[in-house]
This record gives sequence, structure tokens and C-alpha cells, in this order.
Amino acid sequence: MTENLQAKIDAYIEDNRERFLEELFTFLRQPSISTRNEGMHECADLLAGLMRGVGIETRIMETPRHPIVYGEIDKGPDAPTVLVYGHYDVQPPEPLELWTSPPFEPEIRNGKIYGRGTSDNKAQIFIYIKTIEALRAVTGDVPLSFKFMFEGEEEIGSPSLAPFIEVNKDLLKADLTYYSDSHVHESGRPIIILGLKGMVYVELTARGARIDQHSMRATGVPNPAWRLVWALNTLKGPDNKVAIEGFYDDVRPLTNMERETIAKIPVDEQTLLDFFGIEKFVPGRVEDGYYYNLISEPTCNIAGIVSGYTGEGSKTVLPSVAKAKVDIRLVPGQRPEDILAKLKRHLENAGFGDIEVEGGNFLIPSRTPIDHPALPVIIESLQEAYGLEPIVFPGIGGAGPNYVFTDILEQACFVVPHATHDQANHAPDESMDLAGFFNGIRTGVRVFPRLAQNLKAE
Amino acid sequence: MTENLQAKIDAYIEDNRERFLEELFTFLRQPSISTRNEGMHECADLLAGLMRGVGIETRIMETPRHPIVYGEIDKGPDAPTVLVYGHYDVQPPEPLELWTSPPFEPEIRNGKIYGRGTSDNKAQIFIYIKTIEALRAVTGDVPLSFKFMFEGEEEIGSPSLAPFIEVNKDLLKADLTYYSDSHVHESGRPIIILGLKGMVYVELTARGARIDQHSMRATGVPNPAWRLVWALNTLKGPDNKVAIEGFYDDVRPLTNMERETIAKIPVDEQTLLDFFGIEKFVPGRVEDGYYYNLISEPTCNIAGIVSGYTGEGSKTVLPSVAKAKVDIRLVPGQRPEDILAKLKRHLENAGFGDIEVEGGNFLIPSRTPIDHPALPVIIESLQEAYGLEPIVFPGIGGAGPNYVFTDILEQACFVVPHATHDQANHAPDESMDLAGFFNGIRTGVRVFPRLAQNLKAE
Repeated sequence: MTENLQAKIDAYIEDNRERFLEELFTFLRQPSISTRNEGMHECADLLAGLMRGVGIETRIMETPRHPIVYGEIDKGPDAPTVLVYGHYDVQPPEPLELWTSPPFEPEIRNGKIYGRGTSDNKAQIFIYIKTIEALRAVTGDVPLSFKFMFEGEEEIGSPSLAPFIEVNKDLLKADLTYYSDSHVHESGRPIIILGLKGMVYVELTARGARIDQHSMRATGVPNPAWRLVWALNTLKGPDNKVAIEGFYDDVRPLTNMERETIAKIPVDEQTLLDFFGIEKFVPGRVEDGYYYNLISEPTCNIAGIVSGYTGEGSKTVLPSVAKAKVDIRLVPGQRPEDILAKLKRHLENAGFGDIEVEGGNFLIPSRTPIDHPALPVIIESLQEAYGLEPIVFPGIGGAGPNYVFTDILEQACFVVPHATHDQANHAPDESMDLAGFFNGIRTGVRVFPRLAQNLKAE
Repeated sequence: MTENLQAKIDAYIEDNRERFLEELFTFLRQPSISTRNEGMHECADLLAGLMRGVGIETRIMETPRHPIVYGEIDKGPDAPTVLVYGHYDVQPPEPLELWTSPPFEPEIRNGKIYGRGTSDNKAQIFIYIKTIEALRAVTGDVPLSFKFMFEGEEEIGSPSLAPFIEVNKDLLKADLTYYSDSHVHESGRPIIILGLKGMVYVELTARGARIDQHSMRATGVPNPAWRLVWALNTLKGPDNKVAIEGFYDDVRPLTNMERETIAKIPVDEQTLLDFFGIEKFVPGRVEDGYYYNLISEPTCNIAGIVSGYTGEGSKTVLPSVAKAKVDIRLVPGQRPEDILAKLKRHLENAGFGDIEVEGGNFLIPSRTPIDHPALPVIIESLQEAYGLEPIVFPGIGGAGPNYVFTDILEQACFVVPHATHDQANHAPDESMDLAGFFNGIRTGVRVFPRLAQNLKAE
């Protein structure tokens, strides 16, 4: 794309700024609270209308819960294709009294749009609708084929997403998946996320007597809180290494390029320590380094534990049940079913076969190769749109279902956030930075023409 | 005492049955809820009046909270003295809707008196007032000197009891303490309790980040739930032996007579296992046997543990704090301050000096020697009054402040319950068995004359 054309597109975005915001506000005003099925179909219809308005061929595809809004711009069999993902459902807005302005009456203050679902994820979806509009308005066309898949269940854990993708593999096939969620770096520098962790979330239950007993019986009646403590202690000791046999066997070591990329992530460990209010980080298994471990290491975390009397003061009870919630985050190479099987085998072998293991929330880790040819193009586009050097995250600590793209659809997946770190998603006064919103569109109109060239060249 | 005289006393009790109950009901009708200071002085006055009515020289002695009703019958320096202890305060009656008849309107049904404070502890105090009356009415005198100490704070943990006894050692000095609380054996056979366990109750706290974190940070931010698990694991392992260094050093081994006495306690371990709903008892440190361990072994019990998210479903949180409540029951020889110091030293030495230890609820273990000369006399009196063979418990699993008698006053202490095991103390429909009440008086009029002979003979 010529510099002249690029300038024209930027001018178009600038000239239509107010209208873009007005349209976005219409989208934001429509509640779409998936967890209580509030306004879901209305919002899907509204989104479909916005998409059709810019020439995306759109249909609403039902799932057992909330519909997926699917759209296409088909440039024929020779054109590269990008799948744009996002979600139009939002978190419940409560507690309402903590909002400065009503959650479904978007308002601009201090350079931010405040409202429920602004950054998470409506404005970050809307970026792509306006990207299409701007490209079409100025160039008369889009540079490659698009598929859009906007789901309505992300805030309730995307229960329909994997099954939907499994049965619609052909429909959704593309050269890569590209989407915006989460937020840019605290410094304001844009980021690109290449991978999310996987997860096994289990609840461990130890049982003792039929009902709680007076603790004087502790000489005879087994205490499940002790059994749970002993069992947990075999999973991980003070060296912080997960002791489940074979746990690390399939961890794919970082590539040199991944290691070099991680080393470039800006970090001030003392500031982080102060922020967390801790004296030092837990020791790393392979080496130290906050981001090195955050990105490359799996975890085994006690997310919750409870047994017996936990109120104020003292009560002498011998509990009848003890429970722990353990979330195990996986890195590429590890498979959830395998890790769950290893955990169960470990407990059995360690003499804790009586501990009940209820597993759920399986997520396969996802990782887009860091040498993927699209990456330099995305970096270049972000650099130009933001005027700041992007930071590449080979992975992050967070888990999520990007495996549906990388493992089920078997295509690279790039997450390119445009919200700021103070977005307050899931919280009162959620906001989307105005600059981020327009930088997102400015990134979009740059990245897709470049990807068209780049993917064709492959 | 001649058989003839004994028969006359029994007849007196039988003849005055209805009046005894009427007087007891007056006592029961007066609420005396220590925890909310309801009716405490009124009840103390009423009790003092009942005591004066049978010739006990009685005064009300103030404490920082609720008064102690103190009474005496002084037979001069040569007479043996018995200190009778009890408490006139009661638990709150709530939930009221679960009572068949109102808690402060005592009612007889199915051979039991129902009402708050019946068995715990008003009827079991009143037994001794009527014992004095019956002895005096028939024999014209009582056989030995009496001291009565009825406190009003037992249901709130007796905070004034030890200090009161410390400053009134001379006043309270006696040959032995004798009182009725708790209940007889499930079989209906009377029991004698010679010891209560001591206790150290601590809350252990591990701290991590300033506030809870997203669990993706688990590669860097320490998790206090893990630290607490690791620390607890060092206190006791699956062999069920307390691993605090020196924990068992001062445990006084059972005497042969204690072991023989324990062996005589009726027990059906399978019935107990079925009742608790467990497959087997935890292994004993020295040997197996439900009562052997209940009576002779100290414990280290997790009464409560909590950290992180403990609600339904999954939440991926890295907790900032983890807490455990641990009750450690002590047997004779062990001292609470020493055990607390050993616990702290152990944590320090095991690398868990960061775990905060907040201690409280110190109780010194108490044990009356099983070869005390009063014991055969009490056994004989119970056997005669009940027509059933008494069971002697050298100790029980429960902890309590009997050390104020055995260690501060340095006198033997015998607990002789007259309630039945279904008394429902602290619960709705608390009751006192009518037979138990009258058997208590029949025991009293037998045991004190015999003790007078027995203690004089020493």
C-alpha cells in the first residue's frame, strides 16, 4: 500500500471518528449478559446488522446456549484468509453503586469510554468492523478474505466454542486467527501474544467420619484435613517443583528465539516485588527471571482449601471433610488428560488413593511458532500505528481456549490487544481507551494489506 | 451409717420428691445466660436463697463479669472438707423454634425434665442442695465440712475461675473437689471421671502477596496455602505421630492401675466405627485400643483450615493468606507453655519461621490419682444408688479447667455425672433425666458420710 493511500485511510478514520463512536455506543448500550441470558439475541442481531452494514455476509448460528455471529468476506480460493475472533457477551455489571456512570450508558471521560463491555470485548470487536469499512471506503475492496466468529459465551467459559469449531472446521479454516482482547503493556507499548497456558482444574476431597466430630475423638477418628495436607504435600514441596511423577516429561523446552524474545520484555523486578508486597519470587525450576518463568513454566497452585471451623475464635472440631481446589497450568507439550492421569496415579502410588479427584476445566496449552512469517508484519503495523515498539510475548501466564485455533483448526493465532492495562474489565467502571480504539483500527488497516502480501508470498 | 438410717434418708427423698422438683423448677425458670448477661444476678440471688434455705452460709462474690455463689458448712478444723463445684449459667436457648416446650418453662415428659440448663448444670448443682437438706433433716447434721463454689461463667469459658481460685486458695482449700457435670455411660451405668485433657489452641497464619493474585502469577508469587500445607506436614505425618521435637518427652506413662481400669471400660469398636462411619481407627502411637488412646494420648488436630476460593465451581486465585486452627490436647506431664514453645521452635527449625503462631485457650491437663482413697467409696456409693456397676475413667478426651482444682488447689477432683447421654446440653430440648436427678441425691447422701469416715481415717 502506498504511503498516499495509507494517509487517505488514516484521514478517513479521523474524519469519521464521531460516527464510529456513535455506532460503537449503540453496540455498548445493548446489554448482553451471557451468565443470565440478558439481551443475548438482541445483541447478536445488532452486531450482525453492524457487520452487514460494512458488507460482511453475516449469519447467526445457534449453539445450545447463545448464538455465534458468523461473517465472511470471500475473495475467492486464491486469496489468503484471516479468521477474526471475539465475543459480544459481557460480565454482569454489579455492583452497580460502584459505577461512576451507568454501565450500559457509555460515557467519555478522561479520554476513555466507560461502560460494561467496552474493552471486554465490544470495542475490540468493533475495531475490525470499522477496519473493513475504512479499507473498503478508501480502496474499494479488502485485501484478503475474512471470516468473523464472534461468540456469546466467553464470559461463561466458552462451553460451545470447541464443539462449534469441531463441527465447522471447514467453514472456519483460515491462514491464521487474529483477534484483540486483554490489554497492552503498562508502558503503553503494544503487545502481541503468541500463546496461552493450558489448564487442569481439580477439586481434591478427603473424607473422614460421617459428620464432624468433637476433636477429643482425634486419637481415634481420622482427620481428613490432615490427609489432604499430607496428600498436597506430596504434590509440591518447598523447592516449588511439582513432584507429580512425569509432570515435566513433555514440557517442550523454549527455542532460542523464544528465550531471546522473553529477554526483551521490559521488567523491573523490584517494582513487581513491591507491587505484590513480597520479598522475593519463588525459585525457578530451570532458571530465575519473572517473565521467563511466567511464560515457560507450568504451575500447580492451591487456589482454595477449606476444612472444619474457619470463623472467628476457637472451636474444637474434627472435620468430616476437607477440600482443596488446585489449578495446574500447562505449557506446550503437556496435555490435560495426561496430566490428570499422572496426578491420579501419583496420589494412588503415594498412598492417597482415598482422595477423591474431580477434574474439570480442561484447556490445552496453545503456542503460535515465534518464527511464523506473519509476526514481523504485525510488529511493523503496530509500530507504525502506535509509534511505539511492540513487545512480543511468546506466551503468557493466563490460560485460555486458543487451542481451538492452534490445535483444532491447526492455524497460527495472534492476540493483539488494544485496551490499556487499567481497563477494569470484569469490574465497575470498565473502560476502553479512545486512543487504543483508534490505534486498533489504524493497526487493522495496516496489518491486513501487509498480511495479504505476506501470506500470498509463502 | 446404719442401713436403717440410710433407708430413712431414702424415704425422705422419696417423700419430698414433688417439692424438690418444684424448687428445682423455680431455679430452672430463672434465665441466666452468661454470654449476654441475662438474669445473672437474679439467678445468683435465687441460688444463694436456695442454699441458705438448707443452712449453707452463703455469700455472693463478685468477679469482673458474673458473680460466684460461695457457700460453707463449717464443722470445725478436724472435719474433712469437700469442695462442691458447679455452674449456674446456661447456654442461650436459641433456636427457640426447635424447642418442644419453652426453654425457661420446665416440663416433664417421658421421665425427663426439659428446659435450658436442666442437666447443664442446674439440676446437677441442685442435687447437692437437696443432699444437704436430706442429710440434715434425717440425721440432724452433715457428716463433714462443705464448701460450695458455683460460678456463672462456665458457658463462656470460665475466664474468672482460675484468677478467683488463685486469690482464694485458703478459702477454697478442701480435701477434695467433687462435682457433677457431663453424663453417665450410654448403657446407663454411672461413671467417675478422674482427669481432663489440657489444651493449646493455636491459629497458624501464612502470608503471601499483599492481596490475592490471579493464579497465573504462581510461577513467581509465593502461595501461602502451600507454605501452610508444608508447615503443617512437618507437625504430623501419615503415621499420626506428632513430630514436634520433644512433644512426647514429658508424657507421664499410664500406671498399671490406670491401664487395668481403662481395659474395663466397655467398648464395642465395630459399633463405634459404624457410628463414626469410618473403616478403621487411626493407629495408636504406643498401642491400639479406642479408650486407651482417647485417655492416654495427646493430639494435634487441624480444627480448621482455609485459604483462597472455597465456594462452588472454579476460581483461579493465588491466595494472599492461609490460616489453620490447630488444637493440641495434652495429657498429664505436658505443660501448655512448654508445648507452645516447642511448636514455635519446631516451625523455626523446619524453615517455617514466617508462619505466625497466635496462641490461646491454654488448659493444663488434670489427673486425679487412680489410687486415691476416696475412689472406692465413690464407686460403692454409686453402685448402691444406681444398682449398676460404675465405670471409672482415668481421663477422658475432653479438655477442661479441672487443673484449677488438681494443680492450683492441689486437691483430688472427682467428676460424677448424673445426666444421661441424650441430655442435649447446648442444644434445643435439653433435658435432665428424673431418675438421674434422684439417683444423684441418693448418691450424695451415701457418698459424703462414707467420705467423712474415709478421709478422717487417712
